[in-house]
Amino acid sequence: MKHIIKIYNTLTRKKETFNPIVENHVGMYVCGPTVYGEPHLGHARPGITFDIIFRYFKHLGYKTRYVRNITDAGHLENDADSGEDKITRKAKLEKLEPMEVVQVYTLAYHKAMQILNCLPPSIEPRATGHIIEQIEMIKKIINTGFAYETNGSVYFDVKKYSEKHKYGILSGRNLDETLEGTRSLEGQEEKKNPFDFALWKNAEKNHIMKWDSPWGKGFPGWHMECSAMSEKYLGPVFDIHGGGMDLIFPHHEAEIAQSNACNKSNPAKYWLHNNMVTIDGKKMGKSLGNFINLNEFFTGKHEKLEKAYSPMTIRFFILQAHYRSTIDFSNAALKAAEKGFKKLMTAMNTLNKLSSSKESSFDINEIQEKCYQAINDDFNTPILIANLFEGVKIINQIHSKDSTISNADLIKMRKLFKIFVYDILGFIEEDSKANEDFSDQLMSLILMLRTKAKANKDWDMADLIREELNKLSVNIKDNREGSLWEKTDEK
Amino acid sequence: MKHIIKIYNTLTRKKETFNPIVENHVGMYVCGPTVYGEPHLGHARPGITFDIIFRYFKHLGYKTRYVRNITDAGHLENDADSGEDKITRKAKLEKLEPMEVVQVYTLAYHKAMQILNCLPPSIEPRATGHIIEQIEMIKKIINTGFAYETNGSVYFDVKKYSEKHKYGILSGRNLDETLEGTRSLEGQEEKKNPFDFALWKNAEKNHIMKWDSPWGKGFPGWHMECSAMSEKYLGPVFDIHGGGMDLIFPHHEAEIAQSNACNKSNPAKYWLHNNMVTIDGKKMGKSLGNFINLNEFFTGKHEKLEKAYSPMTIRFFILQAHYRSTIDFSNAALKAAEKGFKKLMTAMNTLNKLSSSKESSFDINEIQEKCYQAINDDFNTPILIANLFEGVKIINQIHSKDSTISNADLIKMRKLFKIFVYDILGFIEEDSKANEDFSDQLMSLILMLRTKAKANKDWDMADLIREELNKLSVNIKDNREGSLWEKTDEK
Repeated sequence: MKHIIKIYNTLTRKKETFNPIVENHVGMYVCGPTVYGEPHLGHARPGITFDIIFRYFKHLGYKTRYVRNITDAGHLENDADSGEDKITRKAKLEKLEPMEVVQVYTLAYHKAMQILNCLPPSIEPRATGHIIEQIEMIKKIINTGFAYETNGSVYFDVKKYSEKHKYGILSGRNLDETLEGTRSLEGQEEKKNPFDFALWKNAEKNHIMKWDSPWGKGFPGWHMECSAMSEKYLGPVFDIHGGGMDLIFPHHEAEIAQSNACNKSNPAKYWLHNNMVTIDGKKMGKSLGNFINLNEFFTGKHEKLEKAYSPMTIRFFILQAHYRSTIDFSNAALKAAEKGFKKLMTAMNTLNKLSSSKESSFDINEIQEKCYQAINDDFNTPILIANLFEGVKIINQIHSKDSTISNADLIKMRKLFKIFVYDILGFIEEDSKANEDFSDQLMSLILMLRTKAKANKDWDMADLIREELNKLSVNIKDNREGSLWEKTDEK
Repeated sequence: MKHIIKIYNTLTRKKETFNPIVENHVGMYVCGPTVYGEPHLGHARPGITFDIIFRYFKHLGYKTRYVRNITDAGHLENDADSGEDKITRKAKLEKLEPMEVVQVYTLAYHKAMQILNCLPPSIEPRATGHIIEQIEMIKKIINTGFAYETNGSVYFDVKKYSEKHKYGILSGRNLDETLEGTRSLEGQEEKKNPFDFALWKNAEKNHIMKWDSPWGKGFPGWHMECSAMSEKYLGPVFDIHGGGMDLIFPHHEAEIAQSNACNKSNPAKYWLHNNMVTIDGKKMGKSLGNFINLNEFFTGKHEKLEKAYSPMTIRFFILQAHYRSTIDFSNAALKAAEKGFKKLMTAMNTLNKLSSSKESSFDINEIQEKCYQAINDDFNTPILIANLFEGVKIINQIHSKDSTISNADLIKMRKLFKIFVYDILGFIEEDSKANEDFSDQLMSLILMLRTKAKANKDWDMADLIREELNKLSVNIKDNREGSLWEKTDEK
């Protein structure tokens, strides 16, 4: 089956047919985290969004190179051109070397991505690991005349660029609008125009993270790293550039300008942006003080959370919305996701146990086609999940003998669900919990046997159960509602 | 209790009292892996060795910065000054971009370290992330006159250095011996003397991993990265430099020479080296084709392995030898380690369940003192473990009422074992197994109840058990020896 994938391109504001630059290959660059805080729901969303895209291209047999960076320097407070480096600021607060901060939060981010079952990218370059490449690119931009040096800093000349290219091509802003959005910040007097942005910043004496350059000691502007690293690992023009919608301006707009100045081309053919997670109608974000980090979700320890939600519940919650829609956080929505995920996993188990009949009472090919249609249509996971639930309904009908399935279709159905549920949507059974569940189920059975023994006045049996459980460090407490148990040797 | 730690210093060939350079602070640099292959037992040993040292300093309250690098460029085949970069070679074999190889094996290494319960280092710098710092250091060495450029490569002038400093101070080799050990390899004609080593190598046209430098496009010599990164994150002189014994020459010898040339000082006060893992009496190594990787241990899938060994068994196996002794691989030794670890964990559980008496029949302080004596004596883990097993004996005696323990001592004993077994030796209960064990125990109990019900001719009860277990997808098969069970819905 040949699949035609439609992708909504932020650049053209319409859905386009995906045609790779090199046949059967996909190069995809996604903006990763600035590692200065605990990973939160705002990290989970792009992580999961582009994981689905990566998984789907791989499923279709594309040789896919997925590059996602780690920003470990150069990202200043408020995404601005002056002020303190986010990581350095955190390092001061925690009295650590900046690279210790980077290590702590890179590990936390990796762990969160792993728990959410996001595949690691093919390459994970770091800003500090590509200072030379950034300097080289800045030199090139100066040579083409689109950047200028002032006091050891280098700025991109947006006005001059605008004479030849369209600055605002991605965000749809025009220069005047850009000007309005520009805050008046320290260091602005070095710029020819307020909308110019830094390619290289001269480092003040007490700035910790700095490197030698042709313009003196300094550090790269935040937008440079992605241009330099995407070009290094994917070439000057690649297929897909992704990231959160909040990165469209100025970050991705600046990347396009830098690449145009350097290579006379927009770096990416398709620009994809995931929407935000909102809470009480506002964007969930660190600076807004209203974010919930992932560990808080997993443990339920946050005032806004009524209970803990498992990693797969979070994954389901995110995939139940299309990546270009906002997702509003609520306990009700999360509980619904939990229920939905459980229902899907139960169906996966039921599917394994089904037995076949002579004929199928439904059309398996129709389900398969609808699933592919959904994912091919701009990676529409909510519709894909809805289609899978049509399948779940049928699975349950077969189980209750209200429908039938032929042996060939049963094999096909199992393959279809494995591909979509595990390989493409990236769900996993939450195993350790499964094991705990099993122990719980066995304990319930034992307690039921004990109740029955007591009802039968079989005191020998009832006592035996209590004694044997004691040997396993299990205490039983009887109350009016029944029996409770706890294991007493837990650490 | 003030602890005096004795450390065997390879530099002085004797045990010395550890005195930190800055009070209450420890800076430790350890050479990490070249990420071009699956992690194996030879990676586990330094990982675990320096993990113990890191954990112990932290336990004593030292603010410890542990830096362990990732070599992702510049390490040529045979540790030589010419030939192919190890990572590039692997990339060609696997048809990947070198940085894809780096990503795959860095992740594999991190996963292995995590499974072995080694704490992540405070900072994990990469060679490619510090090209500028290496270039800066090479410039400094050229300025001091201890390096020279030929054809775009820069070499360290060992003979000139030897006129002022002792080259061979760490390895104990003299210049003539060094000469004997030098292979005649391509590129030697660029050097003044065969024992000179590369600080920067001119890159041939088809060399993939290369950077701009004052000497043209090239890449740093393997020894440079550790000098540049240790200085960046720990300063020009720090407390401990560690690594495997095979790194003493030429790698660490070269580091000392580079730092002396640059900063007029040996970079580290104490040089620690773990010994090798041997197999059939020979060093286990990738180039020798006789190595067993860690996944093979965990799954038992290797012709030399009679069974699978868990991560904690591997950890116990390594810690049962002192880090400066060789460890010879054998199934017998691993099985003994497995048994030992299990015995220790069983004792930890027993310790939790002990009840106290009025008085103790033994001296808890003596055990504690002996444990600290062992670890303070050059981190002697085998003696520490032997002392803990003295404690295990007593725990078991108290459990069987052959010894007694007071309440105060019981609290102390629990704390002591927690500190040494979990915090310092870094053992963990192999949890998922614990949970499986619990399910197994409950199933045994249920089957026993069923047997008893049958013996009592309580057919209702016996049938009920079978039916309820069926609902949980558990099948029971009765045979002459008793009942077997299996869960049928496992994936």
